[in-house]
Amino acid sequence: MQTLGLALMGTGRMAHVYGPKIGAHPGLRLEVIYNPRMSSATKAAEQYGGRAMDDLDAVLADPAVDAVVIATPTDTHVDYIEAAARAGKPIYCEKPLDQSLERVDRAMSALHAYPVPFMLGFNRRFDPDNAALRDAVTRGEVGRLNMLMSWSREPSPPPIEYVCVSGGYFVDAAIHDIDLLCWIAGERPAEVMAAGSCMFDDRIGAEGDFDMTMTTLKMPSGALLHINNSRACAYGFDQRLEAFGDKGMVQTLNHRDDNLVRWNKARTVAREPLKHFFLERFDQSFYNALDEFHQAVTEDRAPSATAQDGRAALAIALACAQSANTGTAVEPNYGCTAGC
Amino acid sequence: MQTLGLALMGTGRMAHVYGPKIGAHPGLRLEVIYNPRMSSATKAAEQYGGRAMDDLDAVLADPAVDAVVIATPTDTHVDYIEAAARAGKPIYCEKPLDQSLERVDRAMSALHAYPVPFMLGFNRRFDPDNAALRDAVTRGEVGRLNMLMSWSREPSPPPIEYVCVSGGYFVDAAIHDIDLLCWIAGERPAEVMAAGSCMFDDRIGAEGDFDMTMTTLKMPSGALLHINNSRACAYGFDQRLEAFGDKGMVQTLNHRDDNLVRWNKARTVAREPLKHFFLERFDQSFYNALDEFHQAVTEDRAPSATAQDGRAALAIALACAQSANTGTAVEPNYGCTAGC
Amino acid sequence: MQTLGLALMGTGRMAHVYGPKIGAHPGLRLEVIYNPRMSSATKAAEQYGGRAMDDLDAVLADPAVDAVVIATPTDTHVDYIEAAARAGKPIYCEKPLDQSLERVDRAMSALHAYPVPFMLGFNRRFDPDNAALRDAVTRGEVGRLNMLMSWSREPSPPPIEYVCVSGGYFVDAAIHDIDLLCWIAGERPAEVMAAGSCMFDDRIGAEGDFDMTMTTLKMPSGALLHINNSRACAYGFDQRLEAFGDKGMVQTLNHRDDNLVRWNKARTVAREPLKHFFLERFDQSFYNALDEFHQAVTEDRAPSATAQDGRAALAIALACAQSANTGTAVEPNYGCTAGC
Amino acid sequence: MQTLGLALMGTGRMAHVYGPKIGAHPGLRLEVIYNPRMSSATKAAEQYGGRAMDDLDAVLADPAVDAVVIATPTDTHVDYIEAAARAGKPIYCEKPLDQSLERVDRAMSALHAYPVPFMLGFNRRFDPDNAALRDAVTRGEVGRLNMLMSWSREPSPPPIEYVCVSGGYFVDAAIHDIDLLCWIAGERPAEVMAAGSCMFDDRIGAEGDFDMTMTTLKMPSGALLHINNSRACAYGFDQRLEAFGDKGMVQTLNHRDDNLVRWNKARTVAREPLKHFFLERFDQSFYNALDEFHQAVTEDRAPSATAQDGRAALAIALACAQSANTGTAVEPNYGCTAGC
Repeated sequence: MQTLGLALMGTGRMAHVYGPKIGAHPGLRLEVIYNPRMSSATKAAEQYGGRAMDDLDAVLADPAVDAVVIATPTDTHVDYIEAAARAGKPIYCEKPLDQSLERVDRAMSALHAYPVPFMLGFNRRFDPDNAALRDAVTRGEVGRLNMLMSWSREPSPPPIEYVCVSGGYFVDAAIHDIDLLCWIAGERPAEVMAAGSCMFDDRIGAEGDFDMTMTTLKMPSGALLHINNSRACAYGFDQRLEAFGDKGMVQTLNHRDDNLVRWNKARTVAREPLKHFFLERFDQSFYNALDEFHQAVTEDRAPSATAQDGRAALAIALACAQSANTGTAVEPNYGCTAGC
Repeated sequence: MQTLGLALMGTGRMAHVYGPKIGAHPGLRLEVIYNPRMSSATKAAEQYGGRAMDDLDAVLADPAVDAVVIATPTDTHVDYIEAAARAGKPIYCEKPLDQSLERVDRAMSALHAYPVPFMLGFNRRFDPDNAALRDAVTRGEVGRLNMLMSWSREPSPPPIEYVCVSGGYFVDAAIHDIDLLCWIAGERPAEVMAAGSCMFDDRIGAEGDFDMTMTTLKMPSGALLHINNSRACAYGFDQRLEAFGDKGMVQTLNHRDDNLVRWNKARTVAREPLKHFFLERFDQSFYNALDEFHQAVTEDRAPSATAQDGRAALAIALACAQSANTGTAVEPNYGCTAGC
Repeated sequence: MQTLGLALMGTGRMAHVYGPKIGAHPGLRLEVIYNPRMSSATKAAEQYGGRAMDDLDAVLADPAVDAVVIATPTDTHVDYIEAAARAGKPIYCEKPLDQSLERVDRAMSALHAYPVPFMLGFNRRFDPDNAALRDAVTRGEVGRLNMLMSWSREPSPPPIEYVCVSGGYFVDAAIHDIDLLCWIAGERPAEVMAAGSCMFDDRIGAEGDFDMTMTTLKMPSGALLHINNSRACAYGFDQRLEAFGDKGMVQTLNHRDDNLVRWNKARTVAREPLKHFFLERFDQSFYNALDEFHQAVTEDRAPSATAQDGRAALAIALACAQSANTGTAVEPNYGCTAGC
Repeated sequence: MQTLGLALMGTGRMAHVYGPKIGAHPGLRLEVIYNPRMSSATKAAEQYGGRAMDDLDAVLADPAVDAVVIATPTDTHVDYIEAAARAGKPIYCEKPLDQSLERVDRAMSALHAYPVPFMLGFNRRFDPDNAALRDAVTRGEVGRLNMLMSWSREPSPPPIEYVCVSGGYFVDAAIHDIDLLCWIAGERPAEVMAAGSCMFDDRIGAEGDFDMTMTTLKMPSGALLHINNSRACAYGFDQRLEAFGDKGMVQTLNHRDDNLVRWNKARTVAREPLKHFFLERFDQSFYNALDEFHQAVTEDRAPSATAQDGRAALAIALACAQSANTGTAVEPNYGCTAGC
């Protein structure tokens, strides 16, 4: 197995997800951990291995760095993409690309000019159950796909400080469901209609954002898609998919910590609570996403989650936000100025 | 138990549903079966009992007729309501009241002028599982209601002739889900957004109708409701509800013909197919609805499914149709000209 | 439909089960309620209809009595069977026939001498789910039947007074499972092995009885059967079957009061508690058993649950008790002295 | 983490299970693969790493070998245990210890004389679901344990050659269930009653063995245990546990390859087939068992699955075989001649 030396860019929450996964993958080697503040880089390197570095040019010039994993704050993704592309390094970038289509198009231009392998971290595609449902749909198990539904209900709202810089609920969270459903359906919506409310945390509403949305995607084939998002969920992280076609339906079930069934006086046939949140529920998917990146780079082919996918998901999310605010159906802006 | 003598108006499909249910209810007596064509009335009377009659005035003047059950074609409901109200007879009327708000308002005026007990046949409220879910919501099991979802997927499209006179998919079928969800939520939508497609029977699309829709209802409380309708469903009559609140979620399960679980080579843990269609799935609810009518009339109180409920559901269904055709959010027209 | 006038013999617990079921069946008419104490008969007749009588000969001579339903204390069953058989009346008798094989053989002799239609009230055969499982087995869904298992766990032990006269746990309760499994398997055990404990109510153990047993039936075909009995069950009346063959397995599920699924913080995916006890769980089966009796008598054919079945079940239950007490495999005594 | 250098004794089926698990464990190092035939050792070493050796004394004298994993044919286990104990090497031994109590007692004597850490490979204890059920029982979730049941139905009979040397079905396979249930119950049976048949492969019966058994264990506390074994199972590897106490019941569910639910025309709500066999179903448990061995040795404590447990499970299995052949309850021979 060919080994790739990686530079992990960033030392925040997502870097802490990727650090151990890189360590566990036999084909990946954590060569460098980068943060412009050396103290943060050093601390992370002590935890996950690799050399701490704070000089971007030195990282990208380092011959032991075969590729970069960008897990920095969202608004710096495009800058790092441009720099790494120019340096000819294959790039794995945490989603979203950015919160603005303009800046995303800058990244697209860079990737057009310096065509390095690029993969966007849409990890949920790499979840075994989500992938199995897509396989079932692709194999024709449900016949022609007529409806597709996705639920993502998070256990509790994030800190209000996070909400303020998140780009809004659609761009921050629904973008996962958007990408997943388009990937399963094999097409992108012609039009979206969305409705939002704020019922869990008033401060989110005061920011002009929603904590609960229902979105309808109208696909060119006629298929109708529903996305069900909530920033709070009393019973855990509710993650379900339902694909309905003229030959039947396939659903994914939620995950639990054990497979026990409990029968007792108060309420019979009870199961364990759901997995708590995305780190628990989608743990495996981060590993699998890195594995896809490793395979694609070592096999010299394009990774399966592209920058174009990321741009389209963002365009759809922004259209959803506009629809939720105006009460009209909105066409997503798919016209990438970089010609993608 | 006080017995009510009933005149069953009509001899079509729904009359064949109500005939046997009246016979099985110890407090109801099928006194008269009415059809303007005597031959049809006679044939039905031979099957279900009662005297065949073809003279409306004679039926309404008959002292043995304590109340009427209107199961005639939809576009005649209002005429029979007016006549029966004027004659002072309590009325049970199959849904919908009519396909036009103008004609419904005529019925409302008649019921205002002649205030007889009136019940609309929204039978699904009287299904034990639907009622149990509403009880759970009302008891606060899910806390504050945030989301409410209803699936109604029919096994196969009706004959195109039926579709042509049905008033459109929203008015004909979604109206059940609309009434059920408003009844559970305890409020009516401020605004609706709907999307429709035609993917199962092109002739339905050629009529300007849909055979598959997704509808979002935005409620004054902020709650968001989803209605999922399909004219076809390979695995039977899919009927589910999901109520989601800040304390949890309650769902209803589909019904089957037996409680066996089958484990075999091809696919393990299989269950019986779903109930075929509404006659099988909601069989009990028709009996229970007649029972509510019987109780209300004999206890001298208003039945629980009112004409106002019927008018509101129609107004919402028409708003859904408009939204699906225009791509904008639409406010239902709740302004009953009869002052209801 | 030919109507049968019935004399209901007895006014105890089981008579209160049969009274309303007879009233609800369109082909049965409760003609007489008999108890040697007139006051008891009168009270029951006021509740369920029919004429109260305390003179056995008069009941059996009454021309309006087409058949008798014996629901008296177990140790009087044989006497009433003899009397009714001699009088030429078709007999429906609550299980068990008796607690001793000697007395059962007396009943068999009477039925041999006076061959009236006779049906034993093994109501669980007439439960729709149990019957559906047998149908599945008979149709060959599981292939050759290799294993068959039955669980009957009651919510709480009966009063100790009842236990003292019950004939022991095997004869009183396991006899239901024994009959059901032999009926499904289509054969009777060559040998039984049983083990018992007393863990719920020490007074039961002090009577030399068990409140918890596991029984193995070894069938002539080689099939192995397991019966799992408990006098107590915290989560309701646990009633399950499992049929395992070389092509697969079929199980029956427990019943609940509703079809809701509840997701909440404490324990997610909870269902309603099980049905409380046999009156709730097997309610329909008593009606269906009377219906089989009505059909058999009016169609002039033998009812499907025979006296022979009752004798065999008792012989097996007694063998189980002996095995549990001696620790050896025991062959049931199938040698009916009446030549059955 | 302290690393242990291991000698893997044997290159057969179980060695192929342990080889990759050792490689995946960060605290274990596959130092040596031993087989008296050098060619076999070399081939396995090429596959899993480590040095190939064919000289037992050299292996046990090798300073890089900190412990041995015995995965040789069952009838050689005792010899290797004696040799490794004498050499002072900690021992992990695949189950069963041996097929005869006499030879097991020889191993017990050796371990008594040379008290090295010793762990028996009862891997099913280390399955997360089995462990979670035991935890639930130990925490008192079901109250006092009254009944405990285990199903182990294998997908298809092993080759007849294997059956001939397996020591019989109880010693070869039921021994897993026996150990698991005693471990959960926290006690060993006072008496066993077993019944067996041969219905899947006549050649197994011709060997005097069974391919289908039902076993009852009577525990000193009064608890009754049931073990349900079959050498064939059309729907996969059926592995279930059910613990029943005075406060409720806990069950484990079978595992599948995905979490999809499929609704289709033929049979609705279908799930993936079960895991194929023990390698798939208990894959994780082998890793966890090695992890327990690693932890115990490096923490200088006794591993949790002891030689005594292995001797007791064998004594129970032999008693089951005797009971199935004689039809009487049998007390297991717990009297270890080595004083254990």
